[in-house]
Amino acid sequence: MARPRRSEKTRQDLLDLGVAALAEKGYNGTGIKEILDSANVPKGSFYNFFKSKEEFAVEIIAHYGEASLAKMDAFISNAEDHPADQVLKTIYQTTLGLIASEDFRKTCLVGSLASEIAASSDACRIALDKQHQQWLQRLEKLVAAGQQQGLFRTDMSSELLAEVFWNQWQGSLLTLKVEKSVDGAKQTLDAMMKLLYIAD
Amino acid sequence: MARPRRSEKTRQDLLDLGVAALAEKGYNGTGIKEILDSANVPKGSFYNFFKSKEEFAVEIIAHYGEASLAKMDAFISNAEDHPADQVLKTIYQTTLGLIASEDFRKTCLVGSLASEIAASSDACRIALDKQHQQWLQRLEKLVAAGQQQGLFRTDMSSELLAEVFWNQWQGSLLTLKVEKSVDGAKQTLDAMMKLLYIAD
Repeated sequence: MARPRRSEKTRQDLLDLGVAALAEKGYNGTGIKEILDSANVPKGSFYNFFKSKEEFAVEIIAHYGEASLAKMDAFISNAEDHPADQVLKTIYQTTLGLIASEDFRKTCLVGSLASEIAASSDACRIALDKQHQQWLQRLEKLVAAGQQQGLFRTDMSSELLAEVFWNQWQGSLLTLKVEKSVDGAKQTLDAMMKLLYIAD
Repeated sequence: MARPRRSEKTRQDLLDLGVAALAEKGYNGTGIKEILDSANVPKGSFYNFFKSKEEFAVEIIAHYGEASLAKMDAFISNAEDHPADQVLKTIYQTTLGLIASEDFRKTCLVGSLASEIAASSDACRIALDKQHQQWLQRLEKLVAAGQQQGLFRTDMSSELLAEVFWNQWQGSLLTLKVEKSVDGAKQTLDAMMKLLYIAD
């Protein structure tokens, strides 16, 4: 049976609000009630949409992941003939700019939740791992393209370099949160790029 | 006036329990009451020791930081004549082993809290930044030693390479939490080491 339209709209609203709240305040810092209030949904209705807070978080991770992958794919497909290093730089510079414009309150939902709840919720951990793997696939393709273009070193596999880049990205987001500035994150990501290049 | 001994012991107990709880469950996931219960301290006494949960967290960060720096300094001073790359490898391999032995429940308190509360508590953010800077100083010295030993590349400053290494470490801890395995973290840290070396 198809879900009624109004219900689906409310469900999407709850997921959007959930992404924003969890990215800013984390899983334990976010109350379901505040999200329901923002969406004008009565408290008792929550369980019509989600079985539990944990299941809500699992769906929030997937919802965030879809949007995030769509943005990344748009960057990549818009720059199909561009050098891979330029595409990678555009992605991280644009994202850092966005984080700064929101006063460093939100960085990467997946990184934040990995740190906070991966160890206590296996359902969330699996959803985070799935998202993590999907990003790595995109990154791996970009790094492989850079290797084929003669830009990036080939003494390590594109898979491994993509994983190193992802870790660097996540670590730089922590630095950014601690320093409340994008300068350090930008410098270290630029350095990471330099480490990827073939030595002169 | 000197603080009575018994009080000081209780205070240290609370900080030790706080480190363990926050590392595993985060700031918002940890209740003060459970810590007081574990230390057999009546609820009303908490404010004899700390002004607020936030101030407690600030002191927990410093307490964790001191212990962590002492361990790092012991590694470094025990290996004064060893090649810097071996010292660095020993530090991360030992730490990864420790994390695995505790079933991936606790990684780095500073990284976890940076992600969870740096944006919402400026007092915690400043304490985290202080700790972050102290690690970077140690790492920078190690990298500089590796450069002087002719092991590490010198086309980037030891400060910058230390920051890149720190980010890689923190990112690899997120990967580890998501994958519930040290294998990926170990591979990427080994790759990071390779990126630090002077090209053949």
